[in-house]
Amino acid sequence: MTSPLQRFHPFIPAGGVGSRLWPLSRADAPKFLLDLTGSGSSLLRATYDRLEGLSAGPLMVVTGRSHAGAVQEQLPELSATDLVLEPSPKDSAAAIGLACTLIERRDPTAIIGSFAADHVVEPAQAFQDVVREAIQAADTGRIVTIGITPSSPATGFGYIKAGRSLGLEQAPHALTVEQFVEKPDEETARQYVASGRYTWNAGMFVAPVGLMLDYLRRSEPELAKGLDRIADAWETTERDAVVDEVWPTLTKTAIDYAVAEPAAAAGDVAMVPGDFTWEDVGDFAAINRLNKVDPQTDSQVSILGSNKRVLADESSGIVVSDTARLIALIGVDDIVVVDTPDALLVTTAEHAQRVKNAVDSLKRNGDTDVL
Amino acid sequence: MTSPLQRFHPFIPAGGVGSRLWPLSRADAPKFLLDLTGSGSSLLRATYDRLEGLSAGPLMVVTGRSHAGAVQEQLPELSATDLVLEPSPKDSAAAIGLACTLIERRDPTAIIGSFAADHVVEPAQAFQDVVREAIQAADTGRIVTIGITPSSPATGFGYIKAGRSLGLEQAPHALTVEQFVEKPDEETARQYVASGRYTWNAGMFVAPVGLMLDYLRRSEPELAKGLDRIADAWETTERDAVVDEVWPTLTKTAIDYAVAEPAAAAGDVAMVPGDFTWEDVGDFAAINRLNKVDPQTDSQVSILGSNKRVLADESSGIVVSDTARLIALIGVDDIVVVDTPDALLVTTAEHAQRVKNAVDSLKRNGDTDVL
Repeated sequence: MTSPLQRFHPFIPAGGVGSRLWPLSRADAPKFLLDLTGSGSSLLRATYDRLEGLSAGPLMVVTGRSHAGAVQEQLPELSATDLVLEPSPKDSAAAIGLACTLIERRDPTAIIGSFAADHVVEPAQAFQDVVREAIQAADTGRIVTIGITPSSPATGFGYIKAGRSLGLEQAPHALTVEQFVEKPDEETARQYVASGRYTWNAGMFVAPVGLMLDYLRRSEPELAKGLDRIADAWETTERDAVVDEVWPTLTKTAIDYAVAEPAAAAGDVAMVPGDFTWEDVGDFAAINRLNKVDPQTDSQVSILGSNKRVLADESSGIVVSDTARLIALIGVDDIVVVDTPDALLVTTAEHAQRVKNAVDSLKRNGDTDVL
Repeated sequence: MTSPLQRFHPFIPAGGVGSRLWPLSRADAPKFLLDLTGSGSSLLRATYDRLEGLSAGPLMVVTGRSHAGAVQEQLPELSATDLVLEPSPKDSAAAIGLACTLIERRDPTAIIGSFAADHVVEPAQAFQDVVREAIQAADTGRIVTIGITPSSPATGFGYIKAGRSLGLEQAPHALTVEQFVEKPDEETARQYVASGRYTWNAGMFVAPVGLMLDYLRRSEPELAKGLDRIADAWETTERDAVVDEVWPTLTKTAIDYAVAEPAAAAGDVAMVPGDFTWEDVGDFAAINRLNKVDPQTDSQVSILGSNKRVLADESSGIVVSDTARLIALIGVDDIVVVDTPDALLVTTAEHAQRVKNAVDSLKRNGDTDVL
């Protein structure tokens, strides 16, 4: 058998609008298609670039049908076979399960890797080193997650409680997983971080494809059967017809419930700690952190987007704009201004999480033209 | 001789951009052309309507040539003879002096009234009662100013120190003026208000036209001669040519220096106190005061302009917008958001006075397209 590194087939589930980033993120411009770091690349493109060197074959992307054009524009090298289009959102078990089912047909000995399209990871080298170790650990017959060393007692993520070392020669940092825990309150999060035994759950999985599918077939047999029917038709002219027929019947459930938690309970999950910078860019406070102001200038305002016509007087915070408008800030601190042609958001970093509530209000009010 | 009320000829000097109201006010959309109260009328139109019932003849408006079209649109009843157009700004002595000179030709016994185009006065009835008393006082051979009863120790206005009652039968509230004082500091303003002897100087004058021009001819003889030359040509085909020739040569000075202060020193100035609501709408804090939120709603945000698509979540302040954009405010207090097609201002009521500095910066930076 070849080295596990040569059997590694990562894929990218690209879903989720990112409501907390409205009005920057929209139904037709979801978070993963945005450049939130000022790098000039969308988060999807950056994720693809970070994984490409590790992959044994072409990378696969799973996304909504309505994003097909935008994704192909970002990733012109992606073939139609590797662009998996969901007719409607069916949660992560269907999306990840379909990618696994398709990869199994290509190489039943594959080690898969699932990496969300909308996270920021730096530096890429440190990330790749950790993934290589996760691949080695996965090849011992485990579902391996990457646990991010917490930089703060964040309450927006789930945590992973690690156990003892697995003592693997090729994966010396791999640990057993005692438990996945839900998003904690602040006091609990503080205890987790202080204990040194908890890491952030970034939703990254590396695993033998057969093991992933064994768990999926056991916990969601109907879903798995549906995915098999789609995979049977994938390389035929029947693909679209079968997808249209089967997809609406699939069970909507999360991969955590269908695979990760039963596998953890059975002792089949391991964790490799990742000591790189990881940010899920969940809200504008995160964007503010990622786009630190240039210490060479006097300005305390970060500017993201193509619009550089910003006048800031005794102000701090972030301006995001691709319009041609002149934006003047006077005496406002930690402000967040997001300026788009049809919608304007004014809030503060402190209230960044509340943006989702505003989006919910807009939905209720029927203001769907700006969502 | 007819009653002085039948010889009253008020006019409206309509000048000044109102830089502190940028980006709502612009060179081509000065403050007096805006509706800042949500009434549906521009400040100029409201000023005209307030004076029309008092006037013995057609009202006169003095404004910049570039505003001719906009003023005529606001005041379609204004004839070309009564629309006095300045080729360039020459300060108030030239503007008010020209109106007086033109009115003197029509009726040498006229009582003139000068009322700025960009103030908010309410209720009109109370204002008119005070003006009628000022007309009666003026007819005794005095320049009469209207002193606004201070509602706060404001530092943005000059003050008038009143003396004893003039004991006039037709103008029982008229007082002598001891002194005009410049904008005070806060401590001094507090003392002024506490003393009960000081009122705000709103720049309103009511006076026999001959007395106004006597003072002007004495203190600025060259200016007065130039205005006479223009008045001689006013009803002829030479009007524009003479204005173009003479106007650039006129001295630039304020009516306060040319007329009001020398007249006060000579004991020729009186004051009638005005106990109506008066607001010069100098900045967005003033607009905020003028547009109190509807107590029937939960919202703490006043909305001015045609755009009603504002979503406010735990926010207070004011939004001014004529765009079609949706504006979401989340967790921002006392905020001022002014949304125009080419410029956006975000500040707070507290920093409203600093808007002028921002406009100055834009001028220095060459961003004149948005001024």
